[in-house]
Amino acid sequence: MSSLDNITEVPDHKLYISYNNIHKLCQQAAQKLKDDDNIPDIIIAIGGGGFIPARILRSFLKKPKGKNIPIQAIGLSLYEAMGDDEDDTKIGKEVIRTQWLDFSTLDKKMFVGKKLLIVDEVDDTRTTLHYAYNELLKDIELQQEELKSTDPTNLGIFVLHNKNKEKKAQLPEELMNSGNYLAAVTVDDAWIAYPWDAADIDLHTRYATLQGNI
Amino acid sequence: MSSLDNITEVPDHKLYISYNNIHKLCQQAAQKLKDDDNIPDIIIAIGGGGFIPARILRSFLKKPKGKNIPIQAIGLSLYEAMGDDEDDTKIGKEVIRTQWLDFSTLDKKMFVGKKLLIVDEVDDTRTTLHYAYNELLKDIELQQEELKSTDPTNLGIFVLHNKNKEKKAQLPEELMNSGNYLAAVTVDDAWIAYPWDAADIDLHTRYATLQGNI
Repeated sequence: MSSLDNITEVPDHKLYISYNNIHKLCQQAAQKLKDDDNIPDIIIAIGGGGFIPARILRSFLKKPKGKNIPIQAIGLSLYEAMGDDEDDTKIGKEVIRTQWLDFSTLDKKMFVGKKLLIVDEVDDTRTTLHYAYNELLKDIELQQEELKSTDPTNLGIFVLHNKNKEKKAQLPEELMNSGNYLAAVTVDDAWIAYPWDAADIDLHTRYATLQGNI
Repeated sequence: MSSLDNITEVPDHKLYISYNNIHKLCQQAAQKLKDDDNIPDIIIAIGGGGFIPARILRSFLKKPKGKNIPIQAIGLSLYEAMGDDEDDTKIGKEVIRTQWLDFSTLDKKMFVGKKLLIVDEVDDTRTTLHYAYNELLKDIELQQEELKSTDPTNLGIFVLHNKNKEKKAQLPEELMNSGNYLAAVTVDDAWIAYPWDAADIDLHTRYATLQGNI
């Protein structure tokens, strides 16, 4: 019996998530995408939070003997500087691109008329997802015009956790109602402690075990 | 006691690695980079295998109250098609870019004169790392010329596992001897079973536990 087994209570109100729990959430989500005949052609991972779920999801979406589903990464940061600006409604709202799809070198046909799945770890204020969804849609529509294509491009979203709270930005109703917005778990507005931020992963996993998130 | 505890033997010769083990390997590597005063300015993750170690590594390289170290993703695939080509020395050797750094939109100063760390999960045949290292170096030297900069750019490599086997491609001696090539673990030429590919993550973790990779 390890000394961690002696710990029987979580010391705070954070929601502790183990790596294995995240693995299972991605596995279940992949099964749902398969059942709905909704397997994406490309995964678009929002870095850094989307990298881990995107990579796990890919394992379970691969067809037997099929090729890996390509993952394209985009980098987005919420601009959180305060400054002297009196308009504090802007705080935490501005999204900065640190990496984007390089349409100049990528095959335009790679996106147009395809199923694309945006992946991130959490839908918190929805600001980042709102930005990613709208900017990707805009860029793909431009590619679509250039190709004179009328094939519909399908843009979906997968997150591990959606926080049940007032959002600072919205996603289109038709996305939310179409089944193309997929959150593995909807949680209250708690602090989610993801394993990749854990200073002591064994202790973290013990807390997650006590909370049933294993 | 869960039924997994009844399993006391690993059924094959694969090396089973748990997520928590990977987390700890990244944590140790970050400590080494810190101790050597070798914290990167930018992490370059080779997708998909480098995404998970890159994201974990970032947690432990962040300075207190400092900004996150940016992760840029590049996508590389080993071309494995056989075809009718009689020259089978090419099989598995050709590297295809599926995503690259978009130097046309990124700030050139972002890379020049900086410490860059390429991250991947495994150094197997060394083919992918050879390609990534040389192509990045070439591109950064071009940026350096354009900026007329003489600041040295430092390009390092981190992998979770280096396989002790004959490599199909080489990395420069000066890199290998400089401390800028960092493998968390050197292993024999075994099949490494990474957790993100596990169909049953609880069973996988049990095997990893039996092997001490937790």
